[in-house]
Amino acid sequence: MIEVKLIGTSGMIPLPDRFLSSCLISYNGNSILIDCGEATQIALKKAKVSLSKIDAILITHLHGDHVLGLPGLLSSIGNAGRQKPINIYGPIGIYKALEGLLYTVGYIPYELMVIEMEENIEHRFDIIGIDVKAISLEHWISCFGYSFILNLKPRFLPDKAKELNVPVSMWQKLHNGESVKVGSKIIVPEMVLGEKREPLKITYCTDTRPIDNIINFAKDSNLFICEGMYGDEDKKEDAISKKHMTFSEAASLARKANVKRLWLTHFSPSMPNPEDYIKIAQNIFKNTEIGSDFLCTVIK
Amino acid sequence: MIEVKLIGTSGMIPLPDRFLSSCLISYNGNSILIDCGEATQIALKKAKVSLSKIDAILITHLHGDHVLGLPGLLSSIGNAGRQKPINIYGPIGIYKALEGLLYTVGYIPYELMVIEMEENIEHRFDIIGIDVKAISLEHWISCFGYSFILNLKPRFLPDKAKELNVPVSMWQKLHNGESVKVGSKIIVPEMVLGEKREPLKITYCTDTRPIDNIINFAKDSNLFICEGMYGDEDKKEDAISKKHMTFSEAASLARKANVKRLWLTHFSPSMPNPEDYIKIAQNIFKNTEIGSDFLCTVIK
Repeated sequence: MIEVKLIGTSGMIPLPDRFLSSCLISYNGNSILIDCGEATQIALKKAKVSLSKIDAILITHLHGDHVLGLPGLLSSIGNAGRQKPINIYGPIGIYKALEGLLYTVGYIPYELMVIEMEENIEHRFDIIGIDVKAISLEHWISCFGYSFILNLKPRFLPDKAKELNVPVSMWQKLHNGESVKVGSKIIVPEMVLGEKREPLKITYCTDTRPIDNIINFAKDSNLFICEGMYGDEDKKEDAISKKHMTFSEAASLARKANVKRLWLTHFSPSMPNPEDYIKIAQNIFKNTEIGSDFLCTVIK
Repeated sequence: MIEVKLIGTSGMIPLPDRFLSSCLISYNGNSILIDCGEATQIALKKAKVSLSKIDAILITHLHGDHVLGLPGLLSSIGNAGRQKPINIYGPIGIYKALEGLLYTVGYIPYELMVIEMEENIEHRFDIIGIDVKAISLEHWISCFGYSFILNLKPRFLPDKAKELNVPVSMWQKLHNGESVKVGSKIIVPEMVLGEKREPLKITYCTDTRPIDNIINFAKDSNLFICEGMYGDEDKKEDAISKKHMTFSEAASLARKANVKRLWLTHFSPSMPNPEDYIKIAQNIFKNTEIGSDFLCTVIK
């Protein structure tokens, strides 16, 4: 199971009652943070997230509202005693951006590994046991959407194993996909495993126009977290000119991608109550929820 | 009159209920901000400060908790429509620090004037009509304390002016210190002005050990705002090794400098309730107050 927690949902500017867009993906006691704008470290503290659990940080793009919290957070993670490295993934230029941001930050007592991703290429990494993919979105500068896929092993069927006289000591091997020999008989995993299971999938896309690539990228996600800069349909021109989306555009992507749930995030500071516009999105994609700081779910 | 408002009172790390140390000095509709750590722009919004009123930013030193909020704040000031220049004063190195911090921030629609100050020299500027002085403190890196002096003209005495038959049209000139001629008689300002008035003075010192220079620098201040990293006397060794002060050290400075009031600020995150230690300071300097976010006073 994967826990998903929104750390903030504001676009452009951090507000007193809405932190900048950021999201935490947790699995097996480790976490991945997506984006880190100014005050994300405060939001993480409010959300009771242990900073020492953050093993990787994925940056969507190098606009201030998505990265200016990095020096403070990385410094606080150091103060919290971390010694294991942290990997930071982001567009080309992130190394130079970090150099500048960290100029006034003292010694960081762990290694920072920076992975720069080229635009318009699909990137793929194993991070904390999750299969993470990144594709280019359509914004002012190189910007990446991320998907998180957790492949689930078929369930192990103890009754079948017992029927075949497989000793318990060999069960783990079989569950891991290896064949074993019991007496003169070869037991292959398929003989003791249940049906193939659908992977768990979460997709996170901000900041971007609603390009077709997102549909395939988010296909069949259990949860699709997507920017919805504007709820009001009258703001569509703004969405186009600023390379963002409206709620209805995000909902259309969700419907076409056949996702199970849609969370909207990255709201314009000009929109104090995104809930006012939820019906516009739900008319297109029923399972739409308005994201809010610290909204959390467990994907099983 | 000068309004003084603490924008934050935390040291090192911004906390969910305590913003990083920062202070706003306002006079005649304009403001000077001292220090700008991560999330200071959120604190300013919470404090209902109009960003467009900030004409100058004084940086004490180039540690992250005092500067990492600059890119976000400068960007938000631009979004708020400012076109007039902003002057930023700080230690040598602040230009390079700003270059790095602003790498991910887009176009700023106003001019930034950066004034770098050499260590161990007293600097003096007129900022928004206030006489601002800066001296070097004792911290890990070049660090400045600031004092703000508002020289008050003697009051104009209309009755005296009427007695001397000075036309109302000449009153302003006399109040500004110029002599005028009424008929064949020379009227000098002293003939129509009241007694010399004491200037208003505010002094702000953080981060530093309690060096003697501060006593003269803060001499006779109406308000002395001073760091008090630790309240507990048992933390004195920490204060020394980290180049900060205890409440009692700050209170001793206040007493020796003969200030009227002392506000403590820049509290260690390890001290959730600085009020617990107020008596320690008040036993040394009675008019000690524990600073808190948005604490405000008007100095007349």
